[in-house]
Amino acid sequence: MISPAFATMLCFVQTDAALSAETADLLLGVCVARSFDRVSVDGQLSTNDTVILQASGESGVRVEAQSGDEVAFGEALDWTMRKLALDIVRDGEGSKRIGRVLVSGGDAAVVSTAARAVANSPLVKAALHGGDPNWGRIAQAVGGAIYDSAPLALDIFIEDVQVCGGGAAVRYDVAALAEAVAGDEVEYRVVLPGDGAETEVFFSDLSHEYVTINADYTT
Amino acid sequence: MISPAFATMLCFVQTDAALSAETADLLLGVCVARSFDRVSVDGQLSTNDTVILQASGESGVRVEAQSGDEVAFGEALDWTMRKLALDIVRDGEGSKRIGRVLVSGGDAAVVSTAARAVANSPLVKAALHGGDPNWGRIAQAVGGAIYDSAPLALDIFIEDVQVCGGGAAVRYDVAALAEAVAGDEVEYRVVLPGDGAETEVFFSDLSHEYVTINADYTT
Repeated sequence: MISPAFATMLCFVQTDAALSAETADLLLGVCVARSFDRVSVDGQLSTNDTVILQASGESGVRVEAQSGDEVAFGEALDWTMRKLALDIVRDGEGSKRIGRVLVSGGDAAVVSTAARAVANSPLVKAALHGGDPNWGRIAQAVGGAIYDSAPLALDIFIEDVQVCGGGAAVRYDVAALAEAVAGDEVEYRVVLPGDGAETEVFFSDLSHEYVTINADYTT
Repeated sequence: MISPAFATMLCFVQTDAALSAETADLLLGVCVARSFDRVSVDGQLSTNDTVILQASGESGVRVEAQSGDEVAFGEALDWTMRKLALDIVRDGEGSKRIGRVLVSGGDAAVVSTAARAVANSPLVKAALHGGDPNWGRIAQAVGGAIYDSAPLALDIFIEDVQVCGGGAAVRYDVAALAEAVAGDEVEYRVVLPGDGAETEVFFSDLSHEYVTINADYTT
């Protein structure tokens, strides 16, 4: 049960830099949106998740608002929190592989809906688990989530290999792609018609172990 | 991949009664809404589903609009289509048990969203598979689907045993409930605060066989 806004977790990030409450709040908000808000194990929101940024100021180094230091600190915080968020996906219940879906085109709501639909589709997750470059399931997840979209002239790339163009099948090197999706991480890219927003979601696969973990105990 | 509006299926219902096109259309619409629209195997909409009602009129028996015959014919059609829809859930990919979730209270959109959230939660489906009367997962699915609802004073009944009242745990006979959820069908009833709409969704469980079926072949 991990699909943050937020996940079943307590995350404490600590620094000895000196930050004002406003700066800490701003940076934490931006970094949460790019990390824990972008991962899903099984699409099930949790009820008790917390990310806390604690700045002791012990080092005496003051990070001023709108300074180069603020940018540098923000980048370090971003790196740390994305790593922690990805560790949650990698450590998902029974997870073997992690997927990353990038969706571009359409407005912010559309790309977010489409990316979460792909990330939370049990069919896409099972295909990720089985090392199956099944792009039909990606098209189905996107089309099912964006109503009134048919015909949807989307492009789909798996590990940078185009498998679908303008909503139709594209010839590709099957053996090369089969090898590419056998790795620990698989990237899916969905391009919706038109310019627009962009987002990403990292997700766990759906494995036999997930079923075992979630079916074979009584709470 | 079965979650009608509609499912991956071709359904033909044939009768030798004589119906006008308008009557057939009306009855079919009502019955589809109560059958195929109310089942889900894994929440993934399909792209190619069809239900066709064919009336040959061969018997010479005319079913007039707004007559007792129309009601009787509608009831028979309803029985037939609900049976067919339930057969799809029962025959879902790797399915062992089927769940029925009834949600009441709130408006039509709220009960529908809540019922589908429960039916499509991999955690609820895994618990159904494992015979685990895990009501926390039901509360989580409902709460996660209905934003801005906390605290949500919902009641939950599993096989008519109340397990949650006003959003809080309720004492119940653990052994009796464990036996009740070991059957082929398990009923979950969610009562949201206030009077309002009511709906139901039938769903498959999430089994090891589902993962095998959907992970272990290449398309």
